Amino acid sequence: MDQNKIILSEKDMPQAWYNILPDLPAPFPPHLHPGTMKPLGPADLAPLFPMELIKQEVSMERFIPIPDDIQRIYKLWRPSPLHRAYRLEKALGTPARIYYKNESVSPAGSHKPNTAVAQAYYNKKEGVTRLATETGAGQWGSALAFACNLFGLKCTVYMVKVSYEQKPYRKIMMQTWGAEVHPSPTTLTNSGKAALQKDPNCPGSLGLAISEAVEDAATHDDTKYSLGSVLNHVLMHQTIVGLEVEKQLKIAKEKPDIMIGCVGGGSNFGGFMMPFVREKMKGRNIRFIAVEPTSCPSLTKGPYIYDYGDVAKLAPIAKMYTLGHGFIPPAIHAGGLRYHGDAPILCLLVNKKLIEAVAYDQKPVFEAALMFARTEGIIPAPETAHAIKAVIDEALKCKASNEAKCIVFNFSGHGHFDLAAYDAYLSGKLEDFPLPEEKIKEALKDVPKVD
Amino acid sequence: MDQNKIILSEKDMPQAWYNILPDLPAPFPPHLHPGTMKPLGPADLAPLFPMELIKQEVSMERFIPIPDDIQRIYKLWRPSPLHRAYRLEKALGTPARIYYKNESVSPAGSHKPNTAVAQAYYNKKEGVTRLATETGAGQWGSALAFACNLFGLKCTVYMVKVSYEQKPYRKIMMQTWGAEVHPSPTTLTNSGKAALQKDPNCPGSLGLAISEAVEDAATHDDTKYSLGSVLNHVLMHQTIVGLEVEKQLKIAKEKPDIMIGCVGGGSNFGGFMMPFVREKMKGRNIRFIAVEPTSCPSLTKGPYIYDYGDVAKLAPIAKMYTLGHGFIPPAIHAGGLRYHGDAPILCLLVNKKLIEAVAYDQKPVFEAALMFARTEGIIPAPETAHAIKAVIDEALKCKASNEAKCIVFNFSGHGHFDLAAYDAYLSGKLEDFPLPEEKIKEALKDVPKVD
Repeated sequence: MDQNKIILSEKDMPQAWYNILPDLPAPFPPHLHPGTMKPLGPADLAPLFPMELIKQEVSMERFIPIPDDIQRIYKLWRPSPLHRAYRLEKALGTPARIYYKNESVSPAGSHKPNTAVAQAYYNKKEGVTRLATETGAGQWGSALAFACNLFGLKCTVYMVKVSYEQKPYRKIMMQTWGAEVHPSPTTLTNSGKAALQKDPNCPGSLGLAISEAVEDAATHDDTKYSLGSVLNHVLMHQTIVGLEVEKQLKIAKEKPDIMIGCVGGGSNFGGFMMPFVREKMKGRNIRFIAVEPTSCPSLTKGPYIYDYGDVAKLAPIAKMYTLGHGFIPPAIHAGGLRYHGDAPILCLLVNKKLIEAVAYDQKPVFEAALMFARTEGIIPAPETAHAIKAVIDEALKCKASNEAKCIVFNFSGHGHFDLAAYDAYLSGKLEDFPLPEEKIKEALKDVPKVD
Repeated sequence: MDQNKIILSEKDMPQAWYNILPDLPAPFPPHLHPGTMKPLGPADLAPLFPMELIKQEVSMERFIPIPDDIQRIYKLWRPSPLHRAYRLEKALGTPARIYYKNESVSPAGSHKPNTAVAQAYYNKKEGVTRLATETGAGQWGSALAFACNLFGLKCTVYMVKVSYEQKPYRKIMMQTWGAEVHPSPTTLTNSGKAALQKDPNCPGSLGLAISEAVEDAATHDDTKYSLGSVLNHVLMHQTIVGLEVEKQLKIAKEKPDIMIGCVGGGSNFGGFMMPFVREKMKGRNIRFIAVEPTSCPSLTKGPYIYDYGDVAKLAPIAKMYTLGHGFIPPAIHAGGLRYHGDAPILCLLVNKKLIEAVAYDQKPVFEAALMFARTEGIIPAPETAHAIKAVIDEALKCKASNEAKCIVFNFSGHGHFDLAAYDAYLSGKLEDFPLPEEKIKEALKDVPKVD
């Protein structure tokens, strides 16, 4: 009988993360200080991050060992399985071989704990007693709550108020793991107070929640800030995913032709594909496809420029494909893909034509999600469903051209807390949000002038 | 570094179920016809079940091969991991070694698909095109929806109306897998119509939903009925769990001293422990502990007598520990444990002193659930949390007596759809429901007179 899953034993779990910085095809454009516009030094970041993470952010070491205490926690669910999607292949009638890396098996239900655990560990080690962060739909907040709890750190989550009210389950999940969750804007920070003064019924936004979490960390000695995507060290922690896939594909005697992932901030796709960039740079023909929503099309429609990381201009300025830090995307269900920019590392790889990008509307994405749920059984998160839509399209191209390609994608998370979106789709109430070009042009007016 | 999980490869997945009937310490008391009170023959069951399952219900073969098509679907998530609960042990300061079999990794989130897939398969094979079933909180309904979808069967789920309204996510999950879900009572059956005529606002009950599903199956030629627990063949399909545990403990070089599971209808605990009964009957000292809620204490407070399986007296009469088929337990959050009786096989083993039973109140159960979520990371279903409470108690006894026992329990499902219960617990709103003895005596007045 054919093998359905390739599973590594715990002793085969990678023991170092892969750092792509020394292998990039061009020098990494440094992050800039939002005030001075000069390259950031460690001292600038020290109020927000522990020194070890600041070092990782700019390290030129190709491999960074994963401390034992992090490995022990990873092993609560890692190594994660690589599945062969036989049933999806059959339903499509494609000669392509489709594999998916199942990151939904973590206790928080996504890839996010891979970096949350690492960040909690390094903070704990440097004497930090509390982490502050923001969350939108709640994937990241719950991952950090999970990680902080295991290291005995306090965790304060600023959750966008409209999500706090609409997605009570994610909030309860964080509280179950001991986190304090506040609907943002709060009266706990100046940024929050200012927003509430302007509009007492302010529904909140991710940008505002970031500002609150950053302010909380910057104004409390025992507290640091934690970010769930975009930054170099975050993507590096996620390479455990791609390094496992590398070993698993070897066991399956496969070489990937196409690797696909969804991109919000870029950490799941980055961690999944970066270890394979080395092979591509050696001349192997691998296509990497980043998938984003048409409602937030930074890679497909944005310019490659320096922009602020947040609305309040408190976070570092980074070079990336961006829709403008003031851009507020339509309320699609894939909340994790609603970031105005993208991880600078990924953007550089897109700019150097190592990664392709594609964007999809919400309705065909849910059609793909349903097909996956009904063939492979697992219900995908709306974010993950974007990757699935691209996988199906590529598999159908293989059918048309009769090519037996090997397609591998990252199943970044399950949709157990997103079933309201499925309900909307099944009852015909799901909407698409075509984005007028003017809206992007408008938001791009306020980007910083950087040489 | 210590191993956290024992994982079997797909080729080591058991290829036959274990049937305990030939190994029971006493003859199995036959199911009786609810009308004639005579032992049921195959013809009596034929309107409800396919012949292969009817045969399995009374088979005296010790092992029944698992068909390839079922094995293929099992392998979407099986073999499931056996985890060592190092963090829980440490938090308790116990010398006991605690292991848990993680059945929450199935797409439906519990052990239920182990039998749902088998039942869908045999029905499909015998030309059935639709299955009807009932569901309370939705664990079983979603497992059957998942299984029917994979075999191209239609699935009709009668979901207790109050749950249908309170737990919309489970309903959407079933619909995502293509099932038709009706809030019960409906106007589609005579049982439903009668209930609505009595009370147009009737909130429904599991007993009533069973009657609707049974009637649906009995009155449609293309449709059969499917039950998620209690029956012999259902417990047998679940032995895949215990057979895997057997192999995994061998790899870990462990022999269990205590095996624990929660009991509603009895299928998760039965499937988990039955393969080990053989060892106990050979003289090995294993304690089996069945855990139930004090609100529905059939094993700890009920008599061992013949009783009806459902309120409407349509289902077979079976010999079991029962609180009376008319008993309506308080609305605890562990909906899966609210059955008036228990699997006849388990009851026989309890009666023969091979299994102990213990009952817990809801609040200490959630305290245990929280401790587990905060040490091992996974959030347990309220049903599963009953087992965890017993595990913690036994581990603390080991601490007091300084005995390094090996405790193994079945982690039957995750609590992703039960977070409202955690919210109630965390905010101090959870109630216990002490059950007056009179209420049990009252419900027992109406049991059938069987010699």
